[in-house]
Amino acid sequence: MLTRKHIILPVIGFVAGTVACLPMLASAQSDDSLAERMDRLEREIQEREETGFAFNGYARSGILSNDEGRRGVGGPFSTPAGSVGGAVGRLGNEPDTYYEAYLTHRSIASNGTRTRFTAMIADSLESNNDWTADVGNLNTRNVFVELSHLPSFSGAFENSTIWAGKRFDRDNFDIHWLDSDVVFLAGTGAGIYDVQMADAWRANFSLYARDFEEESGDVEVYIGTVNNFVGNWQWMLNGISAPRNRDDGVGGGGEAPANTGVQTMLAYHGDSFFGLSDGFFKVALLYGARLGAEVKVLGGDANLQDDAQALRLAIYGTTYLSENWRLAPAIFAEASQDRYVEDDDYRWLTLNMRLVREITSNFELAFEGTWQTMDLEPEGYLDRNAVDGDFYKFTVAPTFKPEVGGFFQRPEIRVFASYTDWDSALNDYAADDAFGSDGFTGGQWQFGAQTEIWF
Amino acid sequence: MLTRKHIILPVIGFVAGTVACLPMLASAQSDDSLAERMDRLEREIQEREETGFAFNGYARSGILSNDEGRRGVGGPFSTPAGSVGGAVGRLGNEPDTYYEAYLTHRSIASNGTRTRFTAMIADSLESNNDWTADVGNLNTRNVFVELSHLPSFSGAFENSTIWAGKRFDRDNFDIHWLDSDVVFLAGTGAGIYDVQMADAWRANFSLYARDFEEESGDVEVYIGTVNNFVGNWQWMLNGISAPRNRDDGVGGGGEAPANTGVQTMLAYHGDSFFGLSDGFFKVALLYGARLGAEVKVLGGDANLQDDAQALRLAIYGTTYLSENWRLAPAIFAEASQDRYVEDDDYRWLTLNMRLVREITSNFELAFEGTWQTMDLEPEGYLDRNAVDGDFYKFTVAPTFKPEVGGFFQRPEIRVFASYTDWDSALNDYAADDAFGSDGFTGGQWQFGAQTEIWF
Amino acid sequence: MLTRKHIILPVIGFVAGTVACLPMLASAQSDDSLAERMDRLEREIQEREETGFAFNGYARSGILSNDEGRRGVGGPFSTPAGSVGGAVGRLGNEPDTYYEAYLTHRSIASNGTRTRFTAMIADSLESNNDWTADVGNLNTRNVFVELSHLPSFSGAFENSTIWAGKRFDRDNFDIHWLDSDVVFLAGTGAGIYDVQMADAWRANFSLYARDFEEESGDVEVYIGTVNNFVGNWQWMLNGISAPRNRDDGVGGGGEAPANTGVQTMLAYHGDSFFGLSDGFFKVALLYGARLGAEVKVLGGDANLQDDAQALRLAIYGTTYLSENWRLAPAIFAEASQDRYVEDDDYRWLTLNMRLVREITSNFELAFEGTWQTMDLEPEGYLDRNAVDGDFYKFTVAPTFKPEVGGFFQRPEIRVFASYTDWDSALNDYAADDAFGSDGFTGGQWQFGAQTEIWF
Repeated sequence: MLTRKHIILPVIGFVAGTVACLPMLASAQSDDSLAERMDRLEREIQEREETGFAFNGYARSGILSNDEGRRGVGGPFSTPAGSVGGAVGRLGNEPDTYYEAYLTHRSIASNGTRTRFTAMIADSLESNNDWTADVGNLNTRNVFVELSHLPSFSGAFENSTIWAGKRFDRDNFDIHWLDSDVVFLAGTGAGIYDVQMADAWRANFSLYARDFEEESGDVEVYIGTVNNFVGNWQWMLNGISAPRNRDDGVGGGGEAPANTGVQTMLAYHGDSFFGLSDGFFKVALLYGARLGAEVKVLGGDANLQDDAQALRLAIYGTTYLSENWRLAPAIFAEASQDRYVEDDDYRWLTLNMRLVREITSNFELAFEGTWQTMDLEPEGYLDRNAVDGDFYKFTVAPTFKPEVGGFFQRPEIRVFASYTDWDSALNDYAADDAFGSDGFTGGQWQFGAQTEIWF
Repeated sequence: MLTRKHIILPVIGFVAGTVACLPMLASAQSDDSLAERMDRLEREIQEREETGFAFNGYARSGILSNDEGRRGVGGPFSTPAGSVGGAVGRLGNEPDTYYEAYLTHRSIASNGTRTRFTAMIADSLESNNDWTADVGNLNTRNVFVELSHLPSFSGAFENSTIWAGKRFDRDNFDIHWLDSDVVFLAGTGAGIYDVQMADAWRANFSLYARDFEEESGDVEVYIGTVNNFVGNWQWMLNGISAPRNRDDGVGGGGEAPANTGVQTMLAYHGDSFFGLSDGFFKVALLYGARLGAEVKVLGGDANLQDDAQALRLAIYGTTYLSENWRLAPAIFAEASQDRYVEDDDYRWLTLNMRLVREITSNFELAFEGTWQTMDLEPEGYLDRNAVDGDFYKFTVAPTFKPEVGGFFQRPEIRVFASYTDWDSALNDYAADDAFGSDGFTGGQWQFGAQTEIWF
Repeated sequence: MLTRKHIILPVIGFVAGTVACLPMLASAQSDDSLAERMDRLEREIQEREETGFAFNGYARSGILSNDEGRRGVGGPFSTPAGSVGGAVGRLGNEPDTYYEAYLTHRSIASNGTRTRFTAMIADSLESNNDWTADVGNLNTRNVFVELSHLPSFSGAFENSTIWAGKRFDRDNFDIHWLDSDVVFLAGTGAGIYDVQMADAWRANFSLYARDFEEESGDVEVYIGTVNNFVGNWQWMLNGISAPRNRDDGVGGGGEAPANTGVQTMLAYHGDSFFGLSDGFFKVALLYGARLGAEVKVLGGDANLQDDAQALRLAIYGTTYLSENWRLAPAIFAEASQDRYVEDDDYRWLTLNMRLVREITSNFELAFEGTWQTMDLEPEGYLDRNAVDGDFYKFTVAPTFKPEVGGFFQRPEIRVFASYTDWDSALNDYAADDAFGSDGFTGGQWQFGAQTEIWF
């Protein structure tokens, strides 16, 4: 028989158990709001990651000296072939401070459209001094806006990005070890990226303007670009127009500067090291005629003639040879004719190899060897003389870095010694270039220290 | 009768129930600290929102070309009247890249005082090239500190902000569509904002210095300002003093450059579109004498004479005509006499209208029409000739933006075509201005693409 | 006797009590994940504090006018002694806008190595105008990378930081009130900080390069530095080499410019105000010979002769005299001979004192008195004349700041009046310096307003 006790006792148990839980109940109620506050905070943090300010950059800075204690001579384009784009290896070969600071603002509209604004300032300094107002080159290289995720865009344009302003094109790419872009499309203009032409085919379209005459701006150059991507393949086609170049152009010793040009590039971006091992490789074949015979800096040379032609090849990649050895070879070559003067002829070929032995997680030994052969017949252009000969450079660079593990891990802080030599014939090419200048006639060591970073 | 069992049993129930809750109890205890940690985190996040670094900016960049493929000629001040401040519509009329990057640091002292430091760099580039070290204009336009919320300030000063340094005055305002400030007070100085003179009356006081001779700095100009705000009304009074201008001034062809000046502005900042519909409107009437006859850029013209006078009117606003049509008209006019030479006389009037049809959430069609009439009698100043005539411009600009919805929604990416024409008499005004120059004699189309952003 | 009821009833109580807690149980489970999310968020926030972008800066900006309304003349180095480093007090004595903006990116590698990249731009402007493209000095003063916490570094190097690039040395220090560094090591190079030589002894080693000829860069200067710290003591030793200076140097009127130099500094960094009260004091004795006779800016003077010698002393500190009075005295003196011409002789001594009365938490009155005596015998160098005389300056500066409480609390917004006078003999020192120039011949008041900040 159930008595009152039989009811009272469990009630006491229930009440007591519940009361013991009461402090928790209070906190449990605030838990709900805690979770909500946490959600809001996480969203806020996430949003700040994707919007607002972003800082990116590239920099190199250091010293290069010869064995007399004078500033070293160097740079990837310091050989005679460099005057027509023939770069050599950059390691232990750079006397300058150069940096780019990207200041970016990002926002997301309530309809989901994403905005990116970027201003980029850069400076190039030969001076080692800390105050360079008189000799510095601080200037603005990029000021542009990109819009993406536009809800009004559908079909082929669904994933497209539109842009306008002054910029380096998004899809430029370079051979880092030679400090040379394979293609460098830049200027002021507008365009659209990532139009989906077919399932596996996307394309960029753009119009860039540049100036042959910086001051007066009377001779503008227009570069119209179609840049196609199908799988690993890229096919780029550029038409160049500078209608006033023949009449009003700066000429610079040339005879019949071209008003138009065409350039095209076929490239393969490989996911492995030539199918042999992990890593990557790239092959690019470039052809240009008339103003397009400057096949890298599109619309960058006012003095090219109507008959000018150039064919350029770039092959490079990186891989690990073993757990601790990395390898990065590059081939870069060009043949061009009738560039600035009838019958001129420029041929050069660069073989470059960077080899790195990782020693500890913070230290590695980098080696770089470059051989460049050139046969240049300028036919008197800019009082330059025909030369035929070879250049080579060997560099060893003990290198500190935050963490070894790849060719593109930065920053690096390195000391280095470079030996360069060349056929003395190359000293005759030009009176105003480095080769043959006081104290730089071949067969010398140069020394230095440098840092390099990108982020 | 209650036996021990009757006590023991519910106690067992209580204990067991409580024990079952123990894991919760543990988490409940950590709940307290969770809430505390959340509080701290939210405070920290909030503080970071209000302190530390902030990035703001303005930018426009694009290309403007004529139908011969040359760089287009333009700019809001390219007409003869532009030489004395007569702006025309900017849409499809700007050939440059211009940007301002504001780098700001904010902090809050333990007593609550708020500090804001801002440095602003700007560049103006006609060149379309990506490397502009030789022709660029990168420079510092603002370096100043503001202090607000000072606990020592009370009474009329309780909500005041004090500042010193180089800056654009906080309360400048502009007619965006004409790219002309109504008043532009800027230079290096110090001042106080928001002194509460009476219940509805607040005032700013400041002293700015500028230089007529940039290099030597011998001729300094001082601008003392009282800027009053009562409801929607603003009354600004400026006294200008350049004691050495008559003796040492740059003169520039003038006869008796003034040493002093006065400028005043009465403005109404309307909360609706002239009381007719939602939107805003502003009316400003400006008068200046002697150095104050440059009524916009205060202390900005060294060559004004003792008899110089100017009267300027600005009326503008924006509204929606219907759900998808926006309208922004502007009237801008000035009459001035005895500016640089006795009996010279400058009169100009600009009517401008921007009209926009919103098509999708990302796209709109913008139209702009400008008519400017001018009657300028420079009496030989700077070898300029008297001209009398009209200018007009019509622009259509298909425009992409993150989200339509107002005249001040940015960024925009636009392509445009502009037709400009003018009375051929205007070509004779000056030998060194755009009008009448090679290929720019009236009746031409110009084309381009441009982005514009502020944030 | 225990019946089933005796068991069942409390069990029901237990179950019911527990079930009542179930909603809490659910939230308790989510508590675990809440705590985890909180942990993650706190880590993320913390990481963002230590990595990514950081903005730091220094700025001063304001106006300085004489009683004729012309730009004031001034600057800590405007006296004849200033031409050889003899600074005077800076308060109410600066006519310029100067700022430094440090843009820093920090990251932490997965192995713990920390990276810091800093680019610093600076501008120095005499012009009060807001557009200074033609007269500005915007330039890049620092571009460097530091690596620290390298796991591969152990023993003496465990806490070391390595760096390379263009920079101001980390361990430079200055007498703020005179705007003079005690030692200023800067340029482009590489080095290591904080090598633990023994228990209480750490040392920095570095090699900096500078240029005597900015344009050609033919005359490089190298500064090798060992900088030792033992307790409060610092001993710095610098060797300077510019092997081409005698043959190719800029010379500048000198006779036999030196190719080498040596400089050394012994300094004591005191933790109290000379042992008398709270605060700090520093004493530094510097000696240099040949190129080292410029004892402050290491490698900064190309024209020093082989016999040049200099001995410099700096003593300064700060303390509170009472609750509201602060005191900061400084002694700065140098004797040097045979600097630029045989038998030239330069002697100067500066006594400076800043005294501050704190009035409210936002306001204080600052006073500064300077007396400088000099006896300069340039022996015709740069057509300068021998002078012997005294200079003094007295300044009063009502000062607003976010919070009073120390000599290094910034920002400050101040107005000021300065009286300067000097022996008229000093006007004869040089034709191209400020002393004796039009309107600046001694015995005058100057007025102004200025802000100063660092963060």
